[in-house]
Amino acid sequence: MKRIAIDMDEVLANTNARFIEWYERYTGVKVTEAQLFEKRQKIYQFVGYPELRNQLHIKGFFKDLPLMPDSQAVVKWLSEHYEIFIVTSAMEFRNSMEDKYDWLEKYFPFLPWKNFVFCGRKDMIIADYLIDDHVKNLTTFTGKGILYHAPHNLDNTEFTRVKNWKEIKSYFETELAK
Amino acid sequence: MKRIAIDMDEVLANTNARFIEWYERYTGVKVTEAQLFEKRQKIYQFVGYPELRNQLHIKGFFKDLPLMPDSQAVVKWLSEHYEIFIVTSAMEFRNSMEDKYDWLEKYFPFLPWKNFVFCGRKDMIIADYLIDDHVKNLTTFTGKGILYHAPHNLDNTEFTRVKNWKEIKSYFETELAK
Repeated sequence: MKRIAIDMDEVLANTNARFIEWYERYTGVKVTEAQLFEKRQKIYQFVGYPELRNQLHIKGFFKDLPLMPDSQAVVKWLSEHYEIFIVTSAMEFRNSMEDKYDWLEKYFPFLPWKNFVFCGRKDMIIADYLIDDHVKNLTTFTGKGILYHAPHNLDNTEFTRVKNWKEIKSYFETELAK
Repeated sequence: MKRIAIDMDEVLANTNARFIEWYERYTGVKVTEAQLFEKRQKIYQFVGYPELRNQLHIKGFFKDLPLMPDSQAVVKWLSEHYEIFIVTSAMEFRNSMEDKYDWLEKYFPFLPWKNFVFCGRKDMIIADYLIDDHVKNLTTFTGKGILYHAPHNLDNTEFTRVKNWKEIKSYFETELAK
């Protein structure tokens, strides 16, 4: 069985939605995802306040993040054809780990905890595919890299781009038919 | 630079010492490491109480575990010659993660968090060496497996056995001289 490694933030979980929610709560200013895509920026670049990224260190930031649309159903389907690993860069954010773990247990209970990997870099992961929104992770990956569409990676043309989970399903339907 | 993956429990950290400490606190009975080595058993097998293993789920179990002798100095030395990853099976124990993270930051501050990996299995790790006390982890590892001497692995003769961190230093001095 081939193995797919899947990133969490901005791939399974909508981390931007939490940034947008908390930024509005602090400042009253509503940022939209469309604005981030238009400017091709992370939210802390878009609002000109790099320190906003430090929210990632706060307990609860990663708690109950919204799911990316169709991610549950497509990962469930994938898990019937592939070995699924969740590989997330949690180690920069000590306080994210329990929230991330609880989130996976809540929304992806069909995935075994044995296949969760909390790491700091992804160049030591053996898998056939990696679905990730960060080009740096795909560049050092030894298998096939699949880039999940995000405001900060729009310039990249090196990797197969998927815009949503429906496209991921189509991609792997084609792979399975080969 | 070649890469060494190092396990935590029973390799860097003396997890048995905590089991022994808590078991004595609960029951008044003092078990010794020598007894475990003599019977070739984990402590919960030795005392005939398998549920003792559930202590691993309790917050604080992994907090301030004693270091294995010489582990800090030898890992520091190794880190000057190799890329060091800490690879620990934390995912079975959701409540262990923060304790393990804090322990690494406290006792191995010279290792970057980027090189910490909390996982459930180790067969998806790319490294040249893995130092681990569990034969199952070495069996599925694609590099050179080094077995850290422990009561539960005394029967194994398949892997290079190291009894302590001084022996690990000797082993890698020989490797570096090759």
